[in-house]
Amino acid sequence: MPRVKCTLSYDGTHFSGYQVQPSSRTVQYEFERALAKLHKGQHIQTRSSGRTDAGVHAVAQISHFDTPIDIPRDKWPIALNGILPEDIAVKDVEPVADDFDARYDAVTKEYRYRVYTGKHPDVFRRNYTYHLPGLLDEEAMKQAASLLLGEHDFTAFCSPKTNVKDKVRTLYEIDIYKQGDEWHFRYVGSGFLYQMVRILTGTILEVGKQKRSPENMTELLKDKKRHLAGPTVSGQGLYLWEVNYS
Amino acid sequence: MPRVKCTLSYDGTHFSGYQVQPSSRTVQYEFERALAKLHKGQHIQTRSSGRTDAGVHAVAQISHFDTPIDIPRDKWPIALNGILPEDIAVKDVEPVADDFDARYDAVTKEYRYRVYTGKHPDVFRRNYTYHLPGLLDEEAMKQAASLLLGEHDFTAFCSPKTNVKDKVRTLYEIDIYKQGDEWHFRYVGSGFLYQMVRILTGTILEVGKQKRSPENMTELLKDKKRHLAGPTVSGQGLYLWEVNYS
Repeated sequence: MPRVKCTLSYDGTHFSGYQVQPSSRTVQYEFERALAKLHKGQHIQTRSSGRTDAGVHAVAQISHFDTPIDIPRDKWPIALNGILPEDIAVKDVEPVADDFDARYDAVTKEYRYRVYTGKHPDVFRRNYTYHLPGLLDEEAMKQAASLLLGEHDFTAFCSPKTNVKDKVRTLYEIDIYKQGDEWHFRYVGSGFLYQMVRILTGTILEVGKQKRSPENMTELLKDKKRHLAGPTVSGQGLYLWEVNYS
Repeated sequence: MPRVKCTLSYDGTHFSGYQVQPSSRTVQYEFERALAKLHKGQHIQTRSSGRTDAGVHAVAQISHFDTPIDIPRDKWPIALNGILPEDIAVKDVEPVADDFDARYDAVTKEYRYRVYTGKHPDVFRRNYTYHLPGLLDEEAMKQAASLLLGEHDFTAFCSPKTNVKDKVRTLYEIDIYKQGDEWHFRYVGSGFLYQMVRILTGTILEVGKQKRSPENMTELLKDKKRHLAGPTVSGQGLYLWEVNYS
């Protein structure tokens, strides 16, 4: 059966995360349910570039699946968006080689994290940003970020619950910039460990609040102790932004 | 008892509207419930500048109430936001004269309406914009708007369900401008009839889609027939933006 690569976006607010799990509303469950409807009840197995946690959003998550249905590329999103719940939207479905794998072929991923710094809560951004009122030290955060770039063992910035043994990853870019009353954190890397972006952001924010020094990053990478790094900031500020393939 | 003027914002998505009604979740109900908690169970009657419908948002709704509690101005929002559900946030509470009335003293109101014109649905804006894909004729819409300015009987642009008899209102400003892939409609008027902003926008959008002429506005104002005007566009694109007092 021909294989397709699907780009989907979702608002993670009302999902228990991406991956199918019993008695929870997940993105993958809703996505495969819509595919089954389009395929007259036939179950279509999908495979994605990775999971996202409860509350976490995706601007462009990538999945692949095999389908006997022949629909023109520009009609696929219309067909699927008519069936999907309104917090998931398909942006593109393109034909790919039979051996394309959304997970193993991913070369880099980009995540973004949004921090709203206004004094009072913002009702319109409560599900889309992490609220941390007050000033942040830009220079210190950028210095901390620069020390995290490159290939490192990120054990200190990874949930102890992970099953992955090899915790070496490469961070190619970290951009930190202010947009109005929000700070945006942009991470591009070879791959990310469980909760890595949220722990990296939580730790850099402590640098921004001058609660720890930028140089502390180097020690954390060396000591590999999760409890010495910063908190895992909340999921609603996090976005899977882009997955790149060679 | 001293009187205060309260500025509150809310995300209307999960509300059946502003005003208290039986067995529905409303903004006023939640607001007065939070006030009762702050006043040790005592019911505090509030009065707002006006109602908003289901799904409609407020950047700055104004209410007044009388309170025996003496809290400094900058501490009021903190006290109330700690009790309110997260889709309502108090921005300011200021002391006013005993005869201040949030409804009758309002001199002008500003509403805004957001229309998202992208091809595919946007999961992050589904509750905050009206989705109308495609191009809009800016010149024609601006011409239509200019014919609506001033003092008119707006019967053609008002739900027949309204109880109000006098349908003469003054529109001081209508701005229509594009921001990225959204069109924003900004209305400033002496007051607005039931669903007036949504019907005005629905009618101007038909002009933008070249389904009716700008000059048709003058006929609608003259003929006063609701069924000849455009549709009532959905509530989720509408924002009560500001209420001005003398």
